[in-house]
Amino acid sequence: MIILGFDIGGANIKAALIKDGDISETYLKYYPMWTSDLSKLSEILTDVVENISGNFNIDAIAVTMTAELSDAFYTKREGIVHIMNSLNDVFEDKDDRLYFINIYGEFIRVDDVLHDPLQVAAANWAATSKFLGEIFKDCILIDIGSTTTDIIPILNTLPLTYGKSDTDRLISGELVYTGVLRTEIPSITHKVVYREQECPISSEKFALSADVHLLLDHINITEYKIDTADGRKKNRKDSMARIARIICSDIELLSEEEILKICRYINSQQIKKIQSALEKVITSIEYKDIFQLPVIVTGLGSNFLANKAALNLGFKKIINLDEKFGKKGNIIAPSAAIALLLEKKLMDE
Amino acid sequence: MIILGFDIGGANIKAALIKDGDISETYLKYYPMWTSDLSKLSEILTDVVENISGNFNIDAIAVTMTAELSDAFYTKREGIVHIMNSLNDVFEDKDDRLYFINIYGEFIRVDDVLHDPLQVAAANWAATSKFLGEIFKDCILIDIGSTTTDIIPILNTLPLTYGKSDTDRLISGELVYTGVLRTEIPSITHKVVYREQECPISSEKFALSADVHLLLDHINITEYKIDTADGRKKNRKDSMARIARIICSDIELLSEEEILKICRYINSQQIKKIQSALEKVITSIEYKDIFQLPVIVTGLGSNFLANKAALNLGFKKIINLDEKFGKKGNIIAPSAAIALLLEKKLMDE
Repeated sequence: MIILGFDIGGANIKAALIKDGDISETYLKYYPMWTSDLSKLSEILTDVVENISGNFNIDAIAVTMTAELSDAFYTKREGIVHIMNSLNDVFEDKDDRLYFINIYGEFIRVDDVLHDPLQVAAANWAATSKFLGEIFKDCILIDIGSTTTDIIPILNTLPLTYGKSDTDRLISGELVYTGVLRTEIPSITHKVVYREQECPISSEKFALSADVHLLLDHINITEYKIDTADGRKKNRKDSMARIARIICSDIELLSEEEILKICRYINSQQIKKIQSALEKVITSIEYKDIFQLPVIVTGLGSNFLANKAALNLGFKKIINLDEKFGKKGNIIAPSAAIALLLEKKLMDE
Repeated sequence: MIILGFDIGGANIKAALIKDGDISETYLKYYPMWTSDLSKLSEILTDVVENISGNFNIDAIAVTMTAELSDAFYTKREGIVHIMNSLNDVFEDKDDRLYFINIYGEFIRVDDVLHDPLQVAAANWAATSKFLGEIFKDCILIDIGSTTTDIIPILNTLPLTYGKSDTDRLISGELVYTGVLRTEIPSITHKVVYREQECPISSEKFALSADVHLLLDHINITEYKIDTADGRKKNRKDSMARIARIICSDIELLSEEEILKICRYINSQQIKKIQSALEKVITSIEYKDIFQLPVIVTGLGSNFLANKAALNLGFKKIINLDEKFGKKGNIIAPSAAIALLLEKKLMDE
């Protein structure tokens, strides 16, 4: 059985092709919707499908999305309907191979989505956690991507989440709007330490978390998969210039060590942010000796953010999904998880 | 005597024409350098000069700048030299009518700037406060513009500032990177109150302070002189959609009153930010009964931000420069202040 999984985000479209229970291909297209011509979305999706599936016949297509929150769309409803229509252009109109996951982790069809679009809004975490529950019966998942962090407690194979919508998930701590690449510095911290003093920072988009993590050797230039804040290059020198600018300085006036100190401070504040959300999530769970639960970390920030936040808080057993499963660490990606889930469902039927 | 004053900022170029001690014209050109073709800067400056001075012969030109911090330039030095060269293209090469103010409030010439460019970096506050010191002997100036806030104690006619560079001024509290229009919400607060709960906000550039202040009727649409965050319109409905998005919601899901509550919360946090910088500034001043000092407020945010911050802290005498001087409130604008200062200097010589 061949299943195509789609995770249509506001910045990236991710796809995974599943062949008989295995991930055969994955594909990521950087496509920032907020600056793109949305009428071209179906062409972009067609390209992605051709790229990943070649001449394969696809038995079913599983879709999850978060792009409806992008300010490319006036409301989530408008976004979801536009994405649906673009998918209908790519495949046949209301193709009966199309499946969508909703916030309750159920697969629903085109007509159901059109009837109540909001139930598929930002449901990618539901796909991921449902899939993961089948591997780890009890655990806490921390998935840190380019822009956001998901913290999902899974007990007895099921996600035990308090929030369903993104807003509720922000409140519960299950969604933290902080990530490895696209996060602007003022959303991590309003000040840094510079020459032993607290220095407030500029509110301009002078630098991004990608610069911090590149300079701290947490990511390499290939992983810096976004536009830079100033349109200049992705290299150490230009990242240093961007970081210097956040305290209204420049690389003539700051030493490399001073810039790295600023990066280390920002990094520690980002860990604290994740840590405090994790704390909020676990205090709402009733579980005997919660710190014995394994914490499953994944995504770009698994090692230098998720791992640290969990250790700081007192968790002892931390499993890096990417290391554990090798290339298959990708299964955590919603695009793959949703395809694998759909395959299982269709096989069971 | 006819003097042209220039304040060349990263987002706006402001100019004022002084005729015999009076402001005869002011002109503002929105020109975001970080997205512009910098080789065109001299053309833009020529346009501004033609617009404001018509056929007048100008006796002298006074210049201050902050645009060198824009990420259009790699370093401040590069920015200052580029702006100098553009001015040299507009006027004759090294025109002897060109004067620049440095961070010590002194007027210097083209060759001095080329010899040590950094001394003119972000010196606009020096022009403003030197000028103001001649009107109010002892006072504290709070000038809140579209992007930043300056807090300048003036004692015995002279600015008593601890910071000279922007970085030092951030540390001392004399520069606060918060303003009425261009400030992104996460740089004001990381959370808002929503349905009696604390809700963390998205790190995306979904809305700006201009949306908050438009919805709270602090500014009108004409004063909303920047690009919107999502490229949509400057009106209440679109501003509400942008604010709803910061908690990952939309205008279908939030009521107008809920959105206004969020705005009021952000507004109160912005006042607190200015208040705490003001507190930092005054604790470093030795002055008997400091709360008796008049606080001079000016700029777009004079009434709803500067005024509130000063009152909250315990100041009793607050003077709104714009109201006191009517249209002449514009004298506080560095472009006018610097021109008036230069006129005085040239008359005295």
